[in-house]
Amino acid sequence: MQAIKELDSQLSVFESLESEVRGYIRSFPTTFVKAKGSMMWDVNEKTYIDFFAGAGALNYGHNNSKMKEKLINYIAEDGITHSLDMGTQAKATFLTCFNEVILKPRNLEYKVMFPGPTGTNTVESALKLARKVTGRELVISFTNGFHGMTLGSLAITGNSFKRHGAGVSLNHSVAMPFDKYLGEDVDTVDYLERFLEDNGSGVALPAAIILETVQGEGGLNVANADWLKRVEEICRRWDILLIVDDVQAGCGRTGTFFSFEQAGINPDIVCLSKSISGYGTPMALTLIKPEYDIWAAGEHNGTFRGHNLAFITATEALTYWENDDFTKEIIDKGLLVDEFLHELVKKYPELEGEVRGKGLFRGIACGVEGLADKICAQAFERGLIMETSGPKSEVFKIMPALTIDCETLKQGFAIIEESVKNSLTN
Amino acid sequence: MQAIKELDSQLSVFESLESEVRGYIRSFPTTFVKAKGSMMWDVNEKTYIDFFAGAGALNYGHNNSKMKEKLINYIAEDGITHSLDMGTQAKATFLTCFNEVILKPRNLEYKVMFPGPTGTNTVESALKLARKVTGRELVISFTNGFHGMTLGSLAITGNSFKRHGAGVSLNHSVAMPFDKYLGEDVDTVDYLERFLEDNGSGVALPAAIILETVQGEGGLNVANADWLKRVEEICRRWDILLIVDDVQAGCGRTGTFFSFEQAGINPDIVCLSKSISGYGTPMALTLIKPEYDIWAAGEHNGTFRGHNLAFITATEALTYWENDDFTKEIIDKGLLVDEFLHELVKKYPELEGEVRGKGLFRGIACGVEGLADKICAQAFERGLIMETSGPKSEVFKIMPALTIDCETLKQGFAIIEESVKNSLTN
Amino acid sequence: MQAIKELDSQLSVFESLESEVRGYIRSFPTTFVKAKGSMMWDVNEKTYIDFFAGAGALNYGHNNSKMKEKLINYIAEDGITHSLDMGTQAKATFLTCFNEVILKPRNLEYKVMFPGPTGTNTVESALKLARKVTGRELVISFTNGFHGMTLGSLAITGNSFKRHGAGVSLNHSVAMPFDKYLGEDVDTVDYLERFLEDNGSGVALPAAIILETVQGEGGLNVANADWLKRVEEICRRWDILLIVDDVQAGCGRTGTFFSFEQAGINPDIVCLSKSISGYGTPMALTLIKPEYDIWAAGEHNGTFRGHNLAFITATEALTYWENDDFTKEIIDKGLLVDEFLHELVKKYPELEGEVRGKGLFRGIACGVEGLADKICAQAFERGLIMETSGPKSEVFKIMPALTIDCETLKQGFAIIEESVKNSLTN
Amino acid sequence: MQAIKELDSQLSVFESLESEVRGYIRSFPTTFVKAKGSMMWDVNEKTYIDFFAGAGALNYGHNNSKMKEKLINYIAEDGITHSLDMGTQAKATFLTCFNEVILKPRNLEYKVMFPGPTGTNTVESALKLARKVTGRELVISFTNGFHGMTLGSLAITGNSFKRHGAGVSLNHSVAMPFDKYLGEDVDTVDYLERFLEDNGSGVALPAAIILETVQGEGGLNVANADWLKRVEEICRRWDILLIVDDVQAGCGRTGTFFSFEQAGINPDIVCLSKSISGYGTPMALTLIKPEYDIWAAGEHNGTFRGHNLAFITATEALTYWENDDFTKEIIDKGLLVDEFLHELVKKYPELEGEVRGKGLFRGIACGVEGLADKICAQAFERGLIMETSGPKSEVFKIMPALTIDCETLKQGFAIIEESVKNSLTN
Repeated sequence: MQAIKELDSQLSVFESLESEVRGYIRSFPTTFVKAKGSMMWDVNEKTYIDFFAGAGALNYGHNNSKMKEKLINYIAEDGITHSLDMGTQAKATFLTCFNEVILKPRNLEYKVMFPGPTGTNTVESALKLARKVTGRELVISFTNGFHGMTLGSLAITGNSFKRHGAGVSLNHSVAMPFDKYLGEDVDTVDYLERFLEDNGSGVALPAAIILETVQGEGGLNVANADWLKRVEEICRRWDILLIVDDVQAGCGRTGTFFSFEQAGINPDIVCLSKSISGYGTPMALTLIKPEYDIWAAGEHNGTFRGHNLAFITATEALTYWENDDFTKEIIDKGLLVDEFLHELVKKYPELEGEVRGKGLFRGIACGVEGLADKICAQAFERGLIMETSGPKSEVFKIMPALTIDCETLKQGFAIIEESVKNSLTN
Repeated sequence: MQAIKELDSQLSVFESLESEVRGYIRSFPTTFVKAKGSMMWDVNEKTYIDFFAGAGALNYGHNNSKMKEKLINYIAEDGITHSLDMGTQAKATFLTCFNEVILKPRNLEYKVMFPGPTGTNTVESALKLARKVTGRELVISFTNGFHGMTLGSLAITGNSFKRHGAGVSLNHSVAMPFDKYLGEDVDTVDYLERFLEDNGSGVALPAAIILETVQGEGGLNVANADWLKRVEEICRRWDILLIVDDVQAGCGRTGTFFSFEQAGINPDIVCLSKSISGYGTPMALTLIKPEYDIWAAGEHNGTFRGHNLAFITATEALTYWENDDFTKEIIDKGLLVDEFLHELVKKYPELEGEVRGKGLFRGIACGVEGLADKICAQAFERGLIMETSGPKSEVFKIMPALTIDCETLKQGFAIIEESVKNSLTN
Repeated sequence: MQAIKELDSQLSVFESLESEVRGYIRSFPTTFVKAKGSMMWDVNEKTYIDFFAGAGALNYGHNNSKMKEKLINYIAEDGITHSLDMGTQAKATFLTCFNEVILKPRNLEYKVMFPGPTGTNTVESALKLARKVTGRELVISFTNGFHGMTLGSLAITGNSFKRHGAGVSLNHSVAMPFDKYLGEDVDTVDYLERFLEDNGSGVALPAAIILETVQGEGGLNVANADWLKRVEEICRRWDILLIVDDVQAGCGRTGTFFSFEQAGINPDIVCLSKSISGYGTPMALTLIKPEYDIWAAGEHNGTFRGHNLAFITATEALTYWENDDFTKEIIDKGLLVDEFLHELVKKYPELEGEVRGKGLFRGIACGVEGLADKICAQAFERGLIMETSGPKSEVFKIMPALTIDCETLKQGFAIIEESVKNSLTN
Repeated sequence: MQAIKELDSQLSVFESLESEVRGYIRSFPTTFVKAKGSMMWDVNEKTYIDFFAGAGALNYGHNNSKMKEKLINYIAEDGITHSLDMGTQAKATFLTCFNEVILKPRNLEYKVMFPGPTGTNTVESALKLARKVTGRELVISFTNGFHGMTLGSLAITGNSFKRHGAGVSLNHSVAMPFDKYLGEDVDTVDYLERFLEDNGSGVALPAAIILETVQGEGGLNVANADWLKRVEEICRRWDILLIVDDVQAGCGRTGTFFSFEQAGINPDIVCLSKSISGYGTPMALTLIKPEYDIWAAGEHNGTFRGHNLAFITATEALTYWENDDFTKEIIDKGLLVDEFLHELVKKYPELEGEVRGKGLFRGIACGVEGLADKICAQAFERGLIMETSGPKSEVFKIMPALTIDCETLKQGFAIIEESVKNSLTN
C-alpha cells in the first residue's frame, strides 16, 4: 500500500491506467481520501472546502451523518442491496415517504419510475414516454440545455463539443432560445409559438418541451417564473408534454425541493437524479402524471434500477423536507452568496462580472476570456473546490452543500476574493 | 412502520405509487427484505434460492461477507463516497489492482474509462469512441443482441419490443446473423463478409462490430470460438474495431473473467458492468486499447462515474481472480448444471428442450410456447428465483451466484424438476 | 376519339384512372387542349388567361413561337433527343451561350451541372455537394421555404403537410426565421448568428444556408437586399456555402435573370429549373463556383440529364437576355400589377389585404380565412387561371408569363376585381 | 457557330464549362449531333451503333419515326406543352390507352400517378405512399439494387460510391441479399423471412419490399420467377407492400411490357420511367393498386408532372403493345444475343466470363478486373456504344433498342468480338 500511495500522490496511476477522457482530475490534480460535510482531505492531508458538491449530487454534504448511520445499519443487517425492479422493503418505504413528504404537500400526483440510476437514464426514459404518449417524434429543447451523454439525451443537449462526440447525427430535436437568450427585451416564448402556429415553419408539433428551470452546465441561466408559465401554457394549448429536467436544479438546490415550485407550474414528467439518494450514490427517478403512465411492463429497463443502498439514504434525506425550515435556510444562505458576488463584481470591475443564479446555485459570468478558469485554479491552490460552466467556461459557480454552515461559506468567500484578486493581477 | 409493512406485503404500495413500467415484481410478486449469498428472504419470511443473481450483477452472491466488511469500514471512516472523476485513493487502488490481477496476467493492455455506472452507459461510450477513432458512423451488431435502453445502445439491440419503445427510428446500425442464426450449417461470418467486400451491398464499412460472446437476454446463444476468431479476423482485415459487450457474460459468468478469453481473441474495446463492483452496486468500465484512447478530456462524462463505494467492493472482488481456482470452480459447477439440464431434457421430452449456455450461464429453450414462463412461475412458488430470456421468452435460465455451494445448487435443481413436471401436467 | 373527348369533358377519365394525388385539376376542373402565349383553351373551346404560367415554368408564355420553330426543326432533322450526359452539339451550344449571355456579363463564374431535369433534383445535388465540400451535415433553411418533394429537399421545406408526407423523420436541417418572420422590427439575421456563434446553441456549423430570395410557395415573402447581404456575410464569416434556390424566382420572374442580382450577392451554388428550358419542358441546372466543383465523375447522375429538346429551346430563350430590355419590360409590367393590387386593397378593405412580391411575382395576402381560394375559384369561372400560396393558402398570386402584353394583363385585372367583389358579397 | 463547332470537337466546351460530375462523356469522348433508330453520328460524321439505348430510355430507338410525326404535329398545333397536373387531352388519351392496352389485358388494376418525370421521383413517391399506407418507416431493399440519386431513393440503393455521395447517413432501410447473392445453393428468401419472423432480429416489420426483377446497374442479376413469387408470398403473409422498380427493366426490356409478368406476381406499386415516353423525353409513372391510393390531393407534387410532349409519344409507343408480336421479337433477338455471348465466353476463356441477363438486357461478367471497361473503350473506338455495370464495373452490357434489326445487331457482335480479342491481347 505504501507503494500505491506514493504513486498515487504523483497522480501517475491515473495517467498511466485511466483513459484520457478523465476531466475533473485535471482541474483538481490531487488524490482525495476522506470527506465530511463541506470538507475534503487529500492524500497529503491538505484540507479543501467544497463549493462544487459533486456537481449537485451532494446537496446534503459528504457522508451526511444521519444517512451514514442508516446506511451502515442496513448493510450490516444484510438488507437487500441489489434487486433489479423486484419489490423490496427499502423501496416500498422510500415510495411511501416520497409520496407523503414531497408529493402530497405540494399537491403533486406522480407515478414514480426507477430508470437506470443516472441523470441521462431518466431523461431517456422521459423522452421515450413522451413520444409514446403523443405518437410524435420531435422534442423541443433549449439553447444551452444539458441533459446527458447517451444518444437520446445528447440530441437535446446544446453544447457543441459534447454533441460532436456523438459521432453520428443527432435528430428528432429542435433547439429553441431559452429565456433572455436574445437579450432582455425579446420574449423568446413568442418566438417559439410563432414556429408552432405556422404550418410552414418547418418545425413539427413536438411530443414534448424539455427544460431546466436553471441551466447549470449552460452557465447558470435562470428562467423567469413568467417565462416558465408561458411555456406551460403553450404546452397545454398545443397538447405538448412538459418535461422538467430537475436533475441538477432539483432536490433543493434553488431553495424548494423542486426547482419549478416557485413558478407554480405542473410538469407532466419530472427527471430527478444527482442528490435524490442524498449520499452521492447512484439513483434516479422519473416522475410521471398518472394519466401518462402508459408504459408496457419492462418497456424500459436496466440492471441497477433497484439500488437499495440508495433508497435507504434517500428516505433519510426526505426528513430535511418535512417542513419549510430547510428551504428558508437555503434561501438565506443563497442571499449571502448573492450579496458577496455583487460586492465582488462592484469591487473588481476588471472581472466584467455578471452575477447569476438562484438559491445556492450561483456564480459570476466573467467577460474576460479564460478568467473564470484561472480563478478556479487559484482557488484550488488555496483549498477551495469550485468549477466553471457555460459554453465558454465563462462562469465560476458557487454551489456548496445546502447544509454548509455560514462560517465555512465565508471562508470560501475569502478564498474566492483572494483568487480573483490574484487572477486579475497576474 | 407497521402500516407500511402491511401495505407492502400486499404489494399495493408498488401498484399505487410505482410506474406501470415495473417488470420483475410481476414475475416475483413479493417484497424482499434480506439476502445473503444465494438466499433471499421476503417480508413473510419465506426463503428463496436465487438462480437469477441480479441478472448477472450478483456473481459473488448477495452481500458477500468479505466485501461487506470492507464497505462498512470505508463508510465508517468517511472515505470519499462521490467524486465525479476526480482522483481518489479508492479509485487508484482499484485501477492498480485491476491492472495487476486481471489485465497483466492475461497479457491485455487497456486504458480504463469510467463511464456512467450502468451497462448502457459503457456501451454508449464504446460506440462514440469507435466512431471517433474511425470517422465512420455505422456499427454492425448481431441478431438477438442486447446492449441497453438508451438510444445509442437500443439501436444495436435486436428485441423489437424494446426497439419499438424508442419512439423514433434507430439508425447507424445493421444487424447481422449471429453464430448459428441460420442453422448449424450456415457460416454466418461468410454472410457478413459478403456484405463487407461487395461495394454494392448497401452496407458501408462500419466503425465497429459489437457482440456478446454469449447472448444472455437473446436466449443463451453461445458463439463458437472459431466464429469469434473469424469475426476478429474480419475486423483486422477491414480495419474495424471489435467491441465485446461483456456486461452480462463477463466477470466470470462463463468461467473465465472475460468471456472471450477462451476464444483467444483480443477486442479493441470491452464493456463491463453488472458484477464488476462485486456487491450489486452500480459501476461500469469501458476498457480501451491504448492506441484508441483518443478521447478529449470530458468528451463523455456523467455524475456517478466516481462511485467509490463500488470501487471498494470491486477491489475486494478481484481477490477471487488472483489464481485459477475460481475459474475451475465455476466450470465444475457449470458442468453440474449442464448434466442436470441434459437429464431433464431427456426425461421430459414434452419440454421439447434444447440445452444452451456455458459456465454458470445455462438454460433450456423450450419448444412449447409459454412453457418457460410457466416453469419459472412454478419455481417461484416453490422458493426459487429464475427467469426466462429469448425473443419469445422461450428459455429458462440458470444463472446462480458463481459462489453458490453445490448443495444449494442441487436444491434448486429439485425445485426446477418439480416445476417442470408440474408445468407439463397442468 | 369522340368517345374519349366526351368522357374527358366530364373529367371522368382522371377521376377513374388517375391517382388521388392529383391537385391542380381540382382547382381548375376542365381539360385543356391548346395554348399560346398567355392564353389557354379547353376542350369546350372556352378561353382562359393564364396568370399562373406553369407555377413559373412558362415565363416566356406557352409555346413561344421562336422556340417552337427551333424545336420543330431540331426534331425534324433527327437531332439527338436523349443523351444521358454524353456530349452533344445542342448541349455544347447551350453551355457556350449560357456562359456568354448570362454568366460573363454578370461577372459570374460557375461550372454548370445537369442534374435530373426537375427542381428537386438540382436541390438534392446542391445539398450533396455542399456536404461534400464542407464535410458537414447540417443545412440551414428558412421558415416557409419550399425546395422539393424528394427526401433531401423535403427536409429543408417548411410546409408541414408536405413534410408529413415523408412518412419518416426529416433530418440534418434546421429552419431559421426568414426575413420579417418575427415582424418588421426583428432582424432575423441577428437571431441566426446568435445560434452560430454560441457553442451551446444546439445548432452545429452548417454545410450550407439555402434560401429563396422570394418565397413563392411560402406566400410571396420577399427578402430585403440588406438581409440577403447579411446572410451572405455570415456565410463568408463562418465558411458556410450559400445556396440560392432560384427554381421559381429565377429566369426573370423578379425582373433580372437571377433573382439575387439586385442584392449584389454572389451565391456559391445556384439551383435553376422551371423556366430554364423556356418552353415548359423538363430541365434543371446546378451552378457551382469552380472551386467547389469537386464532384467525382458520376457521383450524382440520372437518366434525363441530357434532354436535348430542352437545350434547344433553352438556348433560344437566352436571346431574351442579350440586353436589358426584357428586364425593363418585366419591371414595368410588375409595377402595373403592383399599382393594381394596391388599389384593390384600398378599395376593398374587407380583403384585409397585404400586397406582396416583386417583379411579376406578386399577390395579395388576405386576412380572411378561405378568401383567397374563393377568389381564385371565381376567377377560373370567369376565364382566369390564378393560384394561391402561403401556409394557409392565404395569398392569391399574379405570376403571368413575363411576355404578357398589357392589354391581356388588364383583362386579367378586371376578372380579378370582379372575382374579389363577388367573393366578398357572396 | 464555326467557332463553337471547333471547340466542341475538341470537347473543350465541356471541360471548361460543365461540372466535373459529368460521366458518360468520359467513356464516349465525342460530341454527338444526330441519331436515328440504333445509329448515332458525331460531329466528325463518324457513325456509331448504339448498344446502350440511353441506359434503357430509348427502347424504341432514337427518334422513332412514328412518334416523331405525332410529336411534330402536336407541337405545330400548339397543343398544351406544360400543364402541371391540370387536365389535358393529351393526358386523358394517354391514361385511357395505357389502361386499355397495358393494364386491362394483363388483368392489372392500377391508379396512375404522375410524379416528377424521372426515375428517382417515382421511387420517392412509392416509398412515401408505402409508408403512409402502413404507418411503418422501414423499407427492405436488396443488395446491388439501384433506385436513384435523391435522398430517399439513395437510401435503398446498394452502391457504396453513390451512397457515400449523400454526405449524410441513409436511414429507414435494410439491404437483404438478392437472389443468388450467397451462391446458387442458398435461398435468400429463407434468410429474409428469418429476420422478419424473429422478434429479436433487429429488423422491424417494413412498410415495403422494393426490388428490380433484373438489376441493371447492379450487374444484370436476374431474379428467378420462384424467388419473386416467394418474396410476394412473404409480402402477403406479413402485410408488406411489394414495390417493383421497373424503371429500367420495364417497358419491354426483358421481353414483356412489365418485367414481372413472367413470374406472375402482382406488385402493389410499380415504378416506371425511362422508356415510358418512348422518345427519350422525361416522364415517369407510379402505378398504385386502387386500395392503396390514399394520397391527399397534392401531397406529393412537382412542376414537370404534366409534360404533355411526352404523353403524345408515350401514347404512340403503346401501339407496340397492342398484341404479342413485339414481345416475341424481343425474345428472339434476346436469344440471338444470348447465343453470341455464350459462344464468346467459350471461345475466350481468358474473359473468365459469365453470361447474364434476360430479353435484350444481357451481358457478360468478366472475372478479370478492369477488363469490361477496356472492352467497352475498344468498342467505342470501333463505333459501338456499350457500357459496363456491376459493383466493380465488371459486366459489359448489351442493351440495344428493342427495335434494332438483326443485321445491326450482328454488326455490333462483330465489333464486340474484335474488342474482346484486342483487349485480351493488349
